Amino acid sequence: MNEKIKDLVGKMTLEEKAGMCSGKDFWNLKGVERLGIPEVMVTDGPHGLRKQKEAADHLGLNESIPAVCFPAACATAASFDKELLKTMGDALGEECQAEEVSVLLGPAVNIKRSPLCGRNFEYFSEDPYLTGKLASAFIQGVQNHHVGTSMKHFAANNQEHRRMTVSANLDERTLREIYLTGFEIAVKEAKPWSLMCSYNKINGTYSSENPYLLTQILRDEWGFEGFVVSDWGAVNERVAGLAAGLDLEMPGSGGETDHQIVEAVKEGTLSMELLDQAVERILERVLEYVDHKSKKDYDMDAHHDLAVSMEEQSAVLLKNEKNLLPLKKGTKVAFIGEFAKKPRYQGGGSSHIQGYRLDNALDSAMEWGDVFYAKGFPADKDAWNTTDVESAVEAAKRAQVAVIFAGLPDVFESEGYDRTHMKLPDAQNRVIEAVRQVQPNTVVVLHNGSPVEMPWVNDVPAILEMYLGGQGVGQACVNLLFGKANPSGKLPETFPKKLSDNPSYLNFPGMGDDVNYAEGIFVGYRYYDMKEMDVQFPFGFGLSYSTFSIGNLRMNKEELGAEDLLKVEVDVTNTGDRAGAEVVQLYVSDKTGSAIRPPRELKGFEKVFLEPGETETISFVLDRRSFSWYHEKIQDWYGADGAYDISIGSSSRDISLSQEVRLTGAVSIPLEIHRNTRMGDLLADPETAAFLKVYMEPLFSMFDKPDGGDAEANEVQDAFFQTIIMESPLRSIAGFAGLSREALDQLIQELKK
Amino acid sequence: MNEKIKDLVGKMTLEEKAGMCSGKDFWNLKGVERLGIPEVMVTDGPHGLRKQKEAADHLGLNESIPAVCFPAACATAASFDKELLKTMGDALGEECQAEEVSVLLGPAVNIKRSPLCGRNFEYFSEDPYLTGKLASAFIQGVQNHHVGTSMKHFAANNQEHRRMTVSANLDERTLREIYLTGFEIAVKEAKPWSLMCSYNKINGTYSSENPYLLTQILRDEWGFEGFVVSDWGAVNERVAGLAAGLDLEMPGSGGETDHQIVEAVKEGTLSMELLDQAVERILERVLEYVDHKSKKDYDMDAHHDLAVSMEEQSAVLLKNEKNLLPLKKGTKVAFIGEFAKKPRYQGGGSSHIQGYRLDNALDSAMEWGDVFYAKGFPADKDAWNTTDVESAVEAAKRAQVAVIFAGLPDVFESEGYDRTHMKLPDAQNRVIEAVRQVQPNTVVVLHNGSPVEMPWVNDVPAILEMYLGGQGVGQACVNLLFGKANPSGKLPETFPKKLSDNPSYLNFPGMGDDVNYAEGIFVGYRYYDMKEMDVQFPFGFGLSYSTFSIGNLRMNKEELGAEDLLKVEVDVTNTGDRAGAEVVQLYVSDKTGSAIRPPRELKGFEKVFLEPGETETISFVLDRRSFSWYHEKIQDWYGADGAYDISIGSSSRDISLSQEVRLTGAVSIPLEIHRNTRMGDLLADPETAAFLKVYMEPLFSMFDKPDGGDAEANEVQDAFFQTIIMESPLRSIAGFAGLSREALDQLIQELKK
Repeated sequence: MNEKIKDLVGKMTLEEKAGMCSGKDFWNLKGVERLGIPEVMVTDGPHGLRKQKEAADHLGLNESIPAVCFPAACATAASFDKELLKTMGDALGEECQAEEVSVLLGPAVNIKRSPLCGRNFEYFSEDPYLTGKLASAFIQGVQNHHVGTSMKHFAANNQEHRRMTVSANLDERTLREIYLTGFEIAVKEAKPWSLMCSYNKINGTYSSENPYLLTQILRDEWGFEGFVVSDWGAVNERVAGLAAGLDLEMPGSGGETDHQIVEAVKEGTLSMELLDQAVERILERVLEYVDHKSKKDYDMDAHHDLAVSMEEQSAVLLKNEKNLLPLKKGTKVAFIGEFAKKPRYQGGGSSHIQGYRLDNALDSAMEWGDVFYAKGFPADKDAWNTTDVESAVEAAKRAQVAVIFAGLPDVFESEGYDRTHMKLPDAQNRVIEAVRQVQPNTVVVLHNGSPVEMPWVNDVPAILEMYLGGQGVGQACVNLLFGKANPSGKLPETFPKKLSDNPSYLNFPGMGDDVNYAEGIFVGYRYYDMKEMDVQFPFGFGLSYSTFSIGNLRMNKEELGAEDLLKVEVDVTNTGDRAGAEVVQLYVSDKTGSAIRPPRELKGFEKVFLEPGETETISFVLDRRSFSWYHEKIQDWYGADGAYDISIGSSSRDISLSQEVRLTGAVSIPLEIHRNTRMGDLLADPETAAFLKVYMEPLFSMFDKPDGGDAEANEVQDAFFQTIIMESPLRSIAGFAGLSREALDQLIQELKK
Repeated sequence: MNEKIKDLVGKMTLEEKAGMCSGKDFWNLKGVERLGIPEVMVTDGPHGLRKQKEAADHLGLNESIPAVCFPAACATAASFDKELLKTMGDALGEECQAEEVSVLLGPAVNIKRSPLCGRNFEYFSEDPYLTGKLASAFIQGVQNHHVGTSMKHFAANNQEHRRMTVSANLDERTLREIYLTGFEIAVKEAKPWSLMCSYNKINGTYSSENPYLLTQILRDEWGFEGFVVSDWGAVNERVAGLAAGLDLEMPGSGGETDHQIVEAVKEGTLSMELLDQAVERILERVLEYVDHKSKKDYDMDAHHDLAVSMEEQSAVLLKNEKNLLPLKKGTKVAFIGEFAKKPRYQGGGSSHIQGYRLDNALDSAMEWGDVFYAKGFPADKDAWNTTDVESAVEAAKRAQVAVIFAGLPDVFESEGYDRTHMKLPDAQNRVIEAVRQVQPNTVVVLHNGSPVEMPWVNDVPAILEMYLGGQGVGQACVNLLFGKANPSGKLPETFPKKLSDNPSYLNFPGMGDDVNYAEGIFVGYRYYDMKEMDVQFPFGFGLSYSTFSIGNLRMNKEELGAEDLLKVEVDVTNTGDRAGAEVVQLYVSDKTGSAIRPPRELKGFEKVFLEPGETETISFVLDRRSFSWYHEKIQDWYGADGAYDISIGSSSRDISLSQEVRLTGAVSIPLEIHRNTRMGDLLADPETAAFLKVYMEPLFSMFDKPDGGDAEANEVQDAFFQTIIMESPLRSIAGFAGLSREALDQLIQELKK
């Protein structure tokens, strides 16, 4: 293969090479007919195919072909199910082959920094580990079909506001631990064909021309071997981008940037090797696709059924007092809210799918008995209509149970702009209030891509979060409400009580073209846990119609050397009377004090389906990285020696088991010795301490406590003088002792030995 | 004067000049006998004189002379009383003259970033305006006596942990708005003789060698004309420090750094002009002191009475259910807790005064009737003793009222180290719990330099915060408890419910030698208000035995031009039946949206004493700065045009009056036009918008919405496409339109016109 590609590239003219590095149009790469290199198509994803019907237009606006709209990432992430994501990828890979699509533009793995980000519905989680693991599974599923994925948006594209000009300003540790880890896991585990760079800048440099990001980290450190494509229109300076590691510009620039590349090579400001390398990377994937093209039809209805099933496994039961749910067949139920007829099932923007079919809850519920409908409020806007509300209240009174289908209207959540608040439409909150006052058995079903405030949370007995559930959402919802399916989703993000609780609140969406990620690593539950804050619903939380117990935690080691793996096992039992699935979550807590770290971080999760009474053993494997933080000084991950807790739970705030493990064999962090090295640090190091104690003995005796005065005051003054010594830099102690500069320099040299 | 100094400096040798720039020993500057320049002394302050008894030793450890220990800044700040601070300064100026002290080392005006900072008790507030105004008054009081002050620690010295090596990393806006404003106000209003630079680094540069801080901001911008002295041992590189604006090094270095200065001048790496300038600055103040030396005795007992009175006006009544306080004369009262006998009245470290007398509450209460004592717990440590507790409970049972004298032991709070938690000693919390269970009329009196958590806050009816109240604290406390004095203090800082609520919590005290002020400008109430958080007691809060009403808000203008002053008046009435004082607070809220800003900021406060039924008019004057934030782009303060609220209240969360004012005449912030200027910004500017609309008309027509599809989906897609245009940088729109680089460059030139 490699030979064939090198051969092809060798035959290409400079202009042809430059041409390969940008699109022919909005959706197609260029081919080189004389060399048998065909044009191939890429299309938006990732929860379905948005392949344009007609010839590509200048903005990709034309309507797309009918396809299967799967649940969006906000929902599928809640499945906490790697296998399920792989199955979804598998289905999409099949669809790509059928529709002659070479690369599906996804998954989107940016971190949910703020609940307001307009594109959150496309993203998985506030947690990078969960994100990375689910993205890996999805990518593997798609790519099994010799179709590529393009994981996006690399990186730190966590808001829509000024997304093409804003600089996400963040420190290296935060970048690594929070915003890159999801990418890193998937690159290493699933080898995506492509990565899509983001629109924004990072610390002032556009992602599309950032060599640190696109080459040093992505390729040199992580071993990425695919090609990097620009987000559509993300290229700033084309030649700088190519040099930085951006292989493919999309869409085309009408030849303008191809020309710039040609000129740069001719002028010697861009090497032919760099250009060849980009072309090779692109061609390798194009040819892999071309060589395995099948154009086999797929079973659309089967994929629809998969969409329904996925959503059943993704919806999160947030509240279910007195087991109001599931509803018995034949119950008199009022379905209230227009979402019952017109569910919100996907978000707006580039990921918008033309679903070939759409199940609504009202139609789906007909077989379950006495279900009647009242509009209550519209699905598409925040509007209050007294007649609608009154009939909703009447319907609720007539029913045994009221189910309110609430959610965010389409215009509230879309790619392109962020939300400005975290509220549901006011009309919906008022209808919920009116209905629950006449009907204690009120269930709220939510359709939204990101958390909403719930002023009525304590007043309704049941809440079911459907997220944006794809075209099967109505059927899935009914199956869950009536117990044909058992909820097993867990929140992949914290639901705060109010917007201002969110860690990014003070710095979102920034000022002008700068947004400072000042909360650092404290994103999502890492923040709420650290700040000991009440939340509405914690990360990892979700109820079931069954109950589960987790027990018998065991580990293969109590102490872990640098290269050791820790195997952790627990037994999970379905203690209820229904089949169902539990997500067992493993969190690690660093007790070494080596860094400011969150109280716990997710480092493992497994979903297990169990019949009533059934028990299964779940095992996790942790390596050093599972315990590590990114140490900027050594530019590497660092797990300090000392004690850590392994905690197992069914949510981030429902930890049932915990056990300590100790790490040994950490790399040593060298003490930098200079005139401003702190005495406390020098005295904490056995070697320098031993030397100093001899060398400085006459000096230390100066700090003997003064006589006289009252004893108690002296005790405090002693503590004060003690800290004076410990906090002093070497030069200051030397200064008190009257050492000359030369003597100090000599002392530093001695200490360095 | 200036001529005389220039003349003197002209007669000095290079070595004599260098010598003037560092101390002779710990407390004395060098003189030049042959020129009649005497040695002068400086001593620690600022809430009393810590003048060493014997000859200065190498660390300033020897016991100091008996002096009057006034309340510490934590307490005096709570007076919210500029006149009172001036009176205190006046007293200290008198004492300095009597004791032959040329400069009192204070006030300390650092911001209380975290409740844990060991030195908070020496600092005024979490608010820079309050800090600056009180510091100004104090400085004016002292300097009226031809004695200098040395305002410290310049700047951003907000923790003791690694204080000599840590770098406080913060952005320019935060530095200016929060950490420098207190210094700025006092420099401009009170012209302190001296400023003391801090130990720490700011953004990597030691304060002692930071030309931006010591010269550009301090002198060039603020017009400071005094000399800068190092904190004791803060000098890193002496010559670099001198060049940066550090005039005087303290203490001496045994000649080592004098020698470095001499060599640098000889080698030409330091100009003689710079050295002369430093010597002139120092000499000017030395001679002002020498020329006005009086060595007049002062009335120590009168100063003690002032200390008592100040503390009466500073203590904060935090809770007083059912008017439990004041106590009636003759009430059977149990005084519990050793602080009743041994009050904690000052903090540890360099400010520790040898008070010539100390009033405790128990002795002071004897004249008020039936007061008996039970130890309950010790004052100096956290220790639990069953016998002591039982007798405390018994005493409480026998009494009509129990007053528990609680607080932090000396070792908990000191210069040199920070607290690690915000709790009282556990033994104290347990005694409070035991006592309040048998005695519903329980009063807790607190002696502490910084907030403490109060797990019992809802269980006791009255709480009186004495802070660290100086040597008269016992007398003042009794006068307040029994109603001889009426509490009028207000909290100069928020009391959060728990430590993790504090904004600095995620970044205090930092990692290694870096502490990131990531919370930015959101310090203290600015944070709690912005985050809509519950607090234990808000900034500016404090009760009285009387009641007050504030009304009749009027302003001299509704609209304010760039140079206009706004006069705001309100009437305050004592509506209770006791004479007392109220602090009227003025807050400004920016409603223009020009920046991320806190909901309100203190911009005026006045304390007024009123007889029952008396009404007085309070007036405030605001200028443009009162409305402004620090705009990094223009490197200046900026008050945007638009609407602001003026709010008047008796605490930051008890706002009784509010009125809008509009600003006009703001400087215009130029739009930077380049290839990455956002279209939305270009279209928001009338001039560039007009040009673009003509130039780009054919382009814009491309964005007309596509036909077909369902209307609702199109509405959302329209919103999405609209944002695509607005969010695009110019180069991206140009790219879609196929403009060449040259055409784009030309367009940019046109737009710039």
